Amino acid sequence: MKLNIALLAGDGIGPEVIDQAVKVSDAIAQKFGHEITWKPALTGAAAIDAVGEPYPDSTHEVCKNADAVLFGAIGHPKYDNDPSAPVRPEQGLLKMRKALGLFANVRPTFTFPSLLDKSPLKRERIEGTDLVFLRELTGGIYFGEKGRRDNGDTAFDNCVYTRAEVQRLAKKGFELAMTRSKKLCCVDKANVLETSRLWRETVQAMEKDYPEVEVSYEFVDAVAMRLVQWPNSYDVLITENLFGDILTDEASVISGSMGLMPSASLGAEVSLFEPIHGSYPQATGLNIANPMATVLSAAMMFENFGLAEEGKAIRESVNKALEAGIVTEDLANGGKAYGTKEVGDWLAANI
Amino acid sequence: MKLNIALLAGDGIGPEVIDQAVKVSDAIAQKFGHEITWKPALTGAAAIDAVGEPYPDSTHEVCKNADAVLFGAIGHPKYDNDPSAPVRPEQGLLKMRKALGLFANVRPTFTFPSLLDKSPLKRERIEGTDLVFLRELTGGIYFGEKGRRDNGDTAFDNCVYTRAEVQRLAKKGFELAMTRSKKLCCVDKANVLETSRLWRETVQAMEKDYPEVEVSYEFVDAVAMRLVQWPNSYDVLITENLFGDILTDEASVISGSMGLMPSASLGAEVSLFEPIHGSYPQATGLNIANPMATVLSAAMMFENFGLAEEGKAIRESVNKALEAGIVTEDLANGGKAYGTKEVGDWLAANI
Ligand SMILES: CC(C)[C@H](C(=O)O)[C@@H](O)C(=O)O
Ligand SMILES: CC(C)[C@H](C(=O)O)[C@@H](O)C(=O)O
Repeated sequence: MKLNIALLAGDGIGPEVIDQAVKVSDAIAQKFGHEITWKPALTGAAAIDAVGEPYPDSTHEVCKNADAVLFGAIGHPKYDNDPSAPVRPEQGLLKMRKALGLFANVRPTFTFPSLLDKSPLKRERIEGTDLVFLRELTGGIYFGEKGRRDNGDTAFDNCVYTRAEVQRLAKKGFELAMTRSKKLCCVDKANVLETSRLWRETVQAMEKDYPEVEVSYEFVDAVAMRLVQWPNSYDVLITENLFGDILTDEASVISGSMGLMPSASLGAEVSLFEPIHGSYPQATGLNIANPMATVLSAAMMFENFGLAEEGKAIRESVNKALEAGIVTEDLANGGKAYGTKEVGDWLAANI
Repeated sequence: MKLNIALLAGDGIGPEVIDQAVKVSDAIAQKFGHEITWKPALTGAAAIDAVGEPYPDSTHEVCKNADAVLFGAIGHPKYDNDPSAPVRPEQGLLKMRKALGLFANVRPTFTFPSLLDKSPLKRERIEGTDLVFLRELTGGIYFGEKGRRDNGDTAFDNCVYTRAEVQRLAKKGFELAMTRSKKLCCVDKANVLETSRLWRETVQAMEKDYPEVEVSYEFVDAVAMRLVQWPNSYDVLITENLFGDILTDEASVISGSMGLMPSASLGAEVSLFEPIHGSYPQATGLNIANPMATVLSAAMMFENFGLAEEGKAIRESVNKALEAGIVTEDLANGGKAYGTKEVGDWLAANI
């Protein structure tokens, strides 16, 4: 396969972890006979510094014309203290999601047996946890009309959803459930919100098209509780943008393997793959960041191209590294800590 | 003191747990020389069945004219499956909050040393946890304009906040922080939402009036993570209605003592006190529900009247019962389980 991949390294540790994912992907290409052309482009604070915009048109051109986007992380402390500043890295993120139509954020949370003790939760609560959130990513209160009235004393944010938006996301959820344990949970607040009632009725109407999938409906507050109590009772969960933001982050810490969690944002034309962690500015340039989440995001990218073997080869390399203790300091547990680059080299060599 | 207390027992186990709180409060009145007049009134499914409305005007009259409201729980399974049904118990709750102006929901989360092992989290993560959420309860997306367009295919919910609403809630937060460790965390999503930016700028402007309070600002997704990782790193948290709904429920399970967690909803004229647990319909009438959360809600009620000794006496009675193993089956841990009523009797006898 010939693959054109847009490479958005971003800020902080982004470039370092992206380098390792490139290395591992190139090893995969070599082994399986693919040809990858990497197309680097600016984003985040790096793009603001260079051209005054976090998601410049030139970057959009590169992404739009790519087969996929591999993304590092964005965010820089100099933009952290003033959320109302006119130009911020996060705005680039939102603009990119909308412009590329990345409507479904796929966030798996799973446990690695060797890392169970890193979790804040007790072992028996998390053993076997293997769930996936599908978060709607281009609608809801993030993108509705917002503003001020009354000389700035009243603020508003409008949350809007259309039936088509819900169907598009839910379809991915049903399809994913069919490839897994056929359990789907729709997370909403239908006892209070009209948009949630639209979500619920739309998903209910789709149930007949997937008779094998067992669908449950839970309120977002109840899910926030049960995720901590019994994360392993969930399989596929679908939800709207803001609920998804909160719940996927909550879910990410329960496995204790946050530095290992990849994600995908699916679009109709092009999809994007990125680690769930942030730009970790304090670690920039220190060669200590864990590259595994980014490497596993590359695995999701290959799988999304239908290249299951390639994805599996990456996952196996990561598992072997974990077992062999070829890990960065966050996972070293007092043992030897390897550098970002050394872990990447090892992973590539073991493909 | 002469106290007029509206008594809203509600549905499911509501009446049973309320009975115990009444018993304990009467013992307090006896001991400290107060006179309590209880004014029962209908609410929830019980009120729908009786008069077709979950929060009838007659109940509002009783509450409005009371010195405080003691509330059990509402919700009945027959209303659970259709969130769009025109009359639901939850609507009574929202109507009551608005009509009584209960703008600040106070939700403490704390640990009982004897119950640490009930938590899904590891002991070292939760030891010493003692935090309080102040959730704004009468504004935001719960009460904004909502509806449908495009023949029902588009749904919307509007989130609105005014500076005065934020100030009113934040003032309670600063005041509470002054009585505790002087740390206040404002939880928002100011990198995306205009209402959150209003929250943040309003709280920032109030900092100068409380120079001793150290204020931090965190995004809601980050708090959803850190609550599970290090709940004991928080003290007082203030937030808007929907974020508060999700985060307070998440926080409630980390201590492992959910059946013991009380809450208060403060209004300008009258305040309401209730356990955070639901109506637990399966347990109705079985004399197995844990009454301690409701009893501790009564403690918060006395404290809110400035009767600190009375509140303390209740808390001490609960602590003694826990130590003596006078507990319902949820806390019995294989040992002897007492009935709801027997626990209530013991608590009252030990005042
Ligand atoms: C940075 C922020 C705008 C973003 C979001 O809320 O979507 C982030 O939290 C995420 O989840 O990707
Ligand atoms: C029942 C529901 C409307 C309510 C809310 O969301 O406020 C409940 O979850 C709560 O937190 O008291």
